[in-house]
Amino acid sequence: MTQLNNIVVGLLGFGNIGKGFATVLEENKAQIESTLGCGITIKKILVREPDKYKNTIVPETLFTANADEILTDPEIQIVIELIGGVQPACDYITKALKQGKHVVTANKAVIALHGKELFALADKNSVSMRFEASVGGGIPIIASLTKSLAANEIEEIVGIINGTTNYILTRMDQEGMSFEDALAEAQAKGFAEADPTSDIEGEDAAFKLSILTHVAFGVDVNPGDMPCVGIGQISEKEIDFAKQLGYKIKLLATVRKNGGSLDVHVHPTLVPFEHPLAAVNNEFNALYVRGNAVGELMLYGKGAGPLPTASAVWSDVLEVVKIVRSQIHETNTISIKNGFKPGIIGSGSNAYYIRLQVTDQPGVLGKISTAFGRNNVSLESVVQRGRGGKSVPLIFITHEAEWDRLDAALNEIKKLSTVEEVASILMVQRRS
Amino acid sequence: MTQLNNIVVGLLGFGNIGKGFATVLEENKAQIESTLGCGITIKKILVREPDKYKNTIVPETLFTANADEILTDPEIQIVIELIGGVQPACDYITKALKQGKHVVTANKAVIALHGKELFALADKNSVSMRFEASVGGGIPIIASLTKSLAANEIEEIVGIINGTTNYILTRMDQEGMSFEDALAEAQAKGFAEADPTSDIEGEDAAFKLSILTHVAFGVDVNPGDMPCVGIGQISEKEIDFAKQLGYKIKLLATVRKNGGSLDVHVHPTLVPFEHPLAAVNNEFNALYVRGNAVGELMLYGKGAGPLPTASAVWSDVLEVVKIVRSQIHETNTISIKNGFKPGIIGSGSNAYYIRLQVTDQPGVLGKISTAFGRNNVSLESVVQRGRGGKSVPLIFITHEAEWDRLDAALNEIKKLSTVEEVASILMVQRRS
Repeated sequence: MTQLNNIVVGLLGFGNIGKGFATVLEENKAQIESTLGCGITIKKILVREPDKYKNTIVPETLFTANADEILTDPEIQIVIELIGGVQPACDYITKALKQGKHVVTANKAVIALHGKELFALADKNSVSMRFEASVGGGIPIIASLTKSLAANEIEEIVGIINGTTNYILTRMDQEGMSFEDALAEAQAKGFAEADPTSDIEGEDAAFKLSILTHVAFGVDVNPGDMPCVGIGQISEKEIDFAKQLGYKIKLLATVRKNGGSLDVHVHPTLVPFEHPLAAVNNEFNALYVRGNAVGELMLYGKGAGPLPTASAVWSDVLEVVKIVRSQIHETNTISIKNGFKPGIIGSGSNAYYIRLQVTDQPGVLGKISTAFGRNNVSLESVVQRGRGGKSVPLIFITHEAEWDRLDAALNEIKKLSTVEEVASILMVQRRS
Repeated sequence: MTQLNNIVVGLLGFGNIGKGFATVLEENKAQIESTLGCGITIKKILVREPDKYKNTIVPETLFTANADEILTDPEIQIVIELIGGVQPACDYITKALKQGKHVVTANKAVIALHGKELFALADKNSVSMRFEASVGGGIPIIASLTKSLAANEIEEIVGIINGTTNYILTRMDQEGMSFEDALAEAQAKGFAEADPTSDIEGEDAAFKLSILTHVAFGVDVNPGDMPCVGIGQISEKEIDFAKQLGYKIKLLATVRKNGGSLDVHVHPTLVPFEHPLAAVNNEFNALYVRGNAVGELMLYGKGAGPLPTASAVWSDVLEVVKIVRSQIHETNTISIKNGFKPGIIGSGSNAYYIRLQVTDQPGVLGKISTAFGRNNVSLESVVQRGRGGKSVPLIFITHEAEWDRLDAALNEIKKLSTVEEVASILMVQRRS
């Protein structure tokens, strides 16, 4: 056991999260040092232009533009990477690990794209690499999966892990706003970036889902390889149709055991009112987990923001200090669990919500239902909204069906002269 | 670092939770041993009548009626106490700690009533004492408070931590059932015991709240000393009144910073529809936590049942094995945080829901409102339900007020000739 009088850390980046990290230290110093059992000092902070940081909550002498002042300083034991984006963050982390430093990061892109190599590199150098803040902000999902649920076989994780899209969908639902107005409001309130593409199109959620899939199943899925549909096509009308049927529309990131393989996808999904995920509103995130011992578990909280994210970064730092003290290396590598075949990644079987726009003629429903049946897609419910107009919406909710069969049915249905458009295809979440 | 080839544990008790513990080992053995990095064996199981355990999932040779075969066996490193109740569980735990064995328990009564002494005894013997399963079943609330949120100052914990009462209130709400019918159904489904007194009267929740208060604030409150009101007086009519005002009625266990002291109480409470706790239904539990960095966090899951509880017990066992391996003692004692004065425990300021039954005469509302005002209790809203009858309900929701002031106002109000009865006094949860 090493006696530690003081832990010395270096910070890479001093944006919102970096400032949050320093703020939490300033406000909760007594609590943190009592938990640590020793003092903790931020020795250096890497920023692009040190001159710009004259009156922050840390002394201006801490700032440097030279990464090596942190990465090669033998006194610094833990490097905390809060720059974001793949490069130069990934290079810095690599160098820190090679220098025998422990690394804590909040960087979803680096972990999703390069996690596997970095974990192996950390193990090679007998140091720890932690990333609680990379998914779900302040929500302790990584700790829960790796520790609290460690005796469980995980069966399913379903997450609302993008606050921007959840805020937009909530405002559309509760206020009847259009997508554009809700997005503008989210931007005005700081819940959406000036360029919201990565959030809206589901890319941000796919990065995080890739990390969850690695942690829970030991399986690596490139975010770009998973089925991913964003919320750009969701109208307030669709949200209203769903509501009339007893569902909320949420952008869900799902990974689910399906025999020996995994279904992994990001998709707008109808969530039954009584499902705990249906009550997750505004910018909040939630992770719904099913384990074979714990049953259903949901963790709910702030998925972004300087202080919630810093709370998670700090939990990693506190854990790494324990590891430093024990001088026992804990492996960072998560191996493939329960014989999953990492190659088999698909959307599996899902229930779907299908909205067609059809010409209101006798016999139209019969022809469509027949096409579904011929492709072995069975229907849970059918709703026709509006009557007497020439063009009416016709909504089907299917039982669980494989995508190929649904696709074949829809191809037949599209050819029917009375079918104007397959206006919407959404997934439907199982009841909890 | 100790090389471990095999961990040997002894089990005290083989009721539902004990069987759940063994079942999880049988079903998830590969996963558990891969996490441990070594094998694990249950060597002995203490039961009253070993002869009764002929065809269980463990060999009958494991069972013994002699506690010392476990408590003094030098090969057994971890004792897992799953008997429940204060004695003999507490004596067994004490002996195990004195013998230098780590202890994992699911026992809320022992921890709430004797935790402080047992933690000190564990520290004296350089062993660990863990109790994740004692609150919230499979929900990782103890790990979250002690580790994931360790850099936070906790401001508030509000829990639905008794599944029996939550099931009853949910059925009364959703089906309009009477308290008696809902209780009978809960008993039939195994969600309530034959003698449900401890659950219904809030005692079970008070035990768990005492543990949460210790863990989050380092303050010890005897469960018997905290204000505690159960749900025996809640009628389906009350639930309906609350619903009309936009609230659900839940039995909440609350501990909240109030300046330098803590408010700690168990009380039926109106929860606004949009609060995440309002969506926690049936036998589910949830812990809503506010920390000064993480903001709002809620953990939701199964608060009881053999497998969810065993999941939590296993998470403790896995952590204790890590500690065994590192040979570094982690203190079990939680000291008082942030200068709380442990003597000052009260109900603090709360918003209240007051239902009076009054004779419908001109001027009655004026007299009552004046009595509230004279005692500095300000009113958020007043609702009169029903008109023209001789006796009508009159409902007030107050702004936050200290109990003494409300009590004084109600004493004046009771004396008014038009007031037949103060029919109900419930708390109102702040909006999140």
